[in-house]
Amino acid sequence: MAAAVMDGRECARALAVGLADEVRRLADRGGRAALAVVSAGSDHGATVYGRRLRRLAGELGIGHVARPLPAGATQADVLGVVARLNEDPAVSGILVLRPLPPHVDEAAVFRALSPDKDVESVHPENAGLLALGVPRFVPSTPAAVFHLLDTWLDAAGEDRADFYHRSRIVVVGRSNTVGKPAVALGCAREASVGSVDVWADRTGGLGRHTRWADVLVVAAGRPGLIRAEHVAPGAIVVDVGINAVTGPDGRTRTVGDVDAASVAPRARALTPVPGGVGPVTDVWLLRSTVRAAARRLEPDTGRTLLEVP
Amino acid sequence: MAAAVMDGRECARALAVGLADEVRRLADRGGRAALAVVSAGSDHGATVYGRRLRRLAGELGIGHVARPLPAGATQADVLGVVARLNEDPAVSGILVLRPLPPHVDEAAVFRALSPDKDVESVHPENAGLLALGVPRFVPSTPAAVFHLLDTWLDAAGEDRADFYHRSRIVVVGRSNTVGKPAVALGCAREASVGSVDVWADRTGGLGRHTRWADVLVVAAGRPGLIRAEHVAPGAIVVDVGINAVTGPDGRTRTVGDVDAASVAPRARALTPVPGGVGPVTDVWLLRSTVRAAARRLEPDTGRTLLEVP
Repeated sequence: MAAAVMDGRECARALAVGLADEVRRLADRGGRAALAVVSAGSDHGATVYGRRLRRLAGELGIGHVARPLPAGATQADVLGVVARLNEDPAVSGILVLRPLPPHVDEAAVFRALSPDKDVESVHPENAGLLALGVPRFVPSTPAAVFHLLDTWLDAAGEDRADFYHRSRIVVVGRSNTVGKPAVALGCAREASVGSVDVWADRTGGLGRHTRWADVLVVAAGRPGLIRAEHVAPGAIVVDVGINAVTGPDGRTRTVGDVDAASVAPRARALTPVPGGVGPVTDVWLLRSTVRAAARRLEPDTGRTLLEVP
Repeated sequence: MAAAVMDGRECARALAVGLADEVRRLADRGGRAALAVVSAGSDHGATVYGRRLRRLAGELGIGHVARPLPAGATQADVLGVVARLNEDPAVSGILVLRPLPPHVDEAAVFRALSPDKDVESVHPENAGLLALGVPRFVPSTPAAVFHLLDTWLDAAGEDRADFYHRSRIVVVGRSNTVGKPAVALGCAREASVGSVDVWADRTGGLGRHTRWADVLVVAAGRPGLIRAEHVAPGAIVVDVGINAVTGPDGRTRTVGDVDAASVAPRARALTPVPGGVGPVTDVWLLRSTVRAAARRLEPDTGRTLLEVP
């Protein structure tokens, strides 16, 4: 058996087609979406990500506003930029690129975001709505994980509800941006869900947990952490890791947290890196930005326009 | 082997002794805590709970304000009471007793609470802070589960960190008030955590999940759901269920979600019902009320005074 490839680029293309249609319908009603991207310093990954979003926004007819600050920007500088974007009626979504410089209190910046523009759901109120099962926005990386899964299950002829109800999803990694919200999304699908962190590895028990999984979501940020012995035969493996690794030839490659060569013969399906979760994440963030703009046209609906992805 | 009894009454007494001391220190600084309890209708369980809290508050020198509304109260009535309590400087904590009448939107009432007085952490912002690992208040039932566990581990001579790092905690039930926050508290202890809901039972797999647990927390609201075959030998079992069951003799007893008679010979430790999690929950809620009052005396600390329990 060789694992089926869960093609993130194809999934992202289909999502973008639907999004382009949403952008048109928004325009018909006189609305326009724009994403503002706040950054401080010149982290390479953040820069690459910001550039990719700008290009994709342009392709989709979504506005893009970059607000780069120097690495020496103070917390007051960052908060000032956020406050102006909160007030700017042309901006429907705000993304604060991480990492912020160490002297800036990230949590304070997240708290300063207008919850209605906080498309990554980092404000405590939005994190709470997600935890309570009624999200205003779904953070884009875990949303992409489940959108990719849902799409693949549909194509495989599986009934989503049936599949999730009898499945065990194990999430490796417990960040506020990926691991924890992924657990919430698994719960929203009424699957059995497990969450393990680095301690499961340190105490020698990682495989004991991960082999329990019908669906293994890996978001640990450690290249090659998951090998064949960690994966149950027939499991579906979603690799969220994006790690730059320099090989013995001096060349840098992007690899995931899963050792694909050893896992592929064992798994039912596997996401590639690159070309798996990443492309879907980008489109999802812009989709949330468009929906934020749409919601401003009908603020009195009183309920979220976003289903759990 | 017969399971050790995790004595909630003894644990609650010790917690209350510490709390009485906090009340005195608060008084020395000119502060006073008071809990306001909002209810609508005459649910028996809610009435009993409210009465128990009033008595305990009295014993501890904590103020208690009851705001009972008739079952016919409108949402505006409930929101009006909450708004006045939010403004009342004599009130440090507000508890909204459930169930509210079906015509009242519970989520809207929770959202109306001042987050600084929301001692059960039902406001989305507080649910979010808990999910993000920086709780303002910890909801009292899951807090009691872990306080009882921590206390028992200490008495058993276990190192807490060691124990949690190598343990798998499985939570049965996924309510916003107990199951989901219990998962967050397990994550905060850096344990491996699993969450299962009713679907695990419907699809025939409940035991497959629960037998995976070193610590099994049961909060499903179904009497006798967990029997011997669901429990790994040597597991620690915490029973959150409180169910009124009428026997063949016509007498009503309170039982948990765990069939204690069959589980006790198998488990390492087990909480009784009644006398397990419940008494600790009551004290915890008042403890949060006192800490809310203490925080108002030093609003500029800028950080939570509450460690994860």
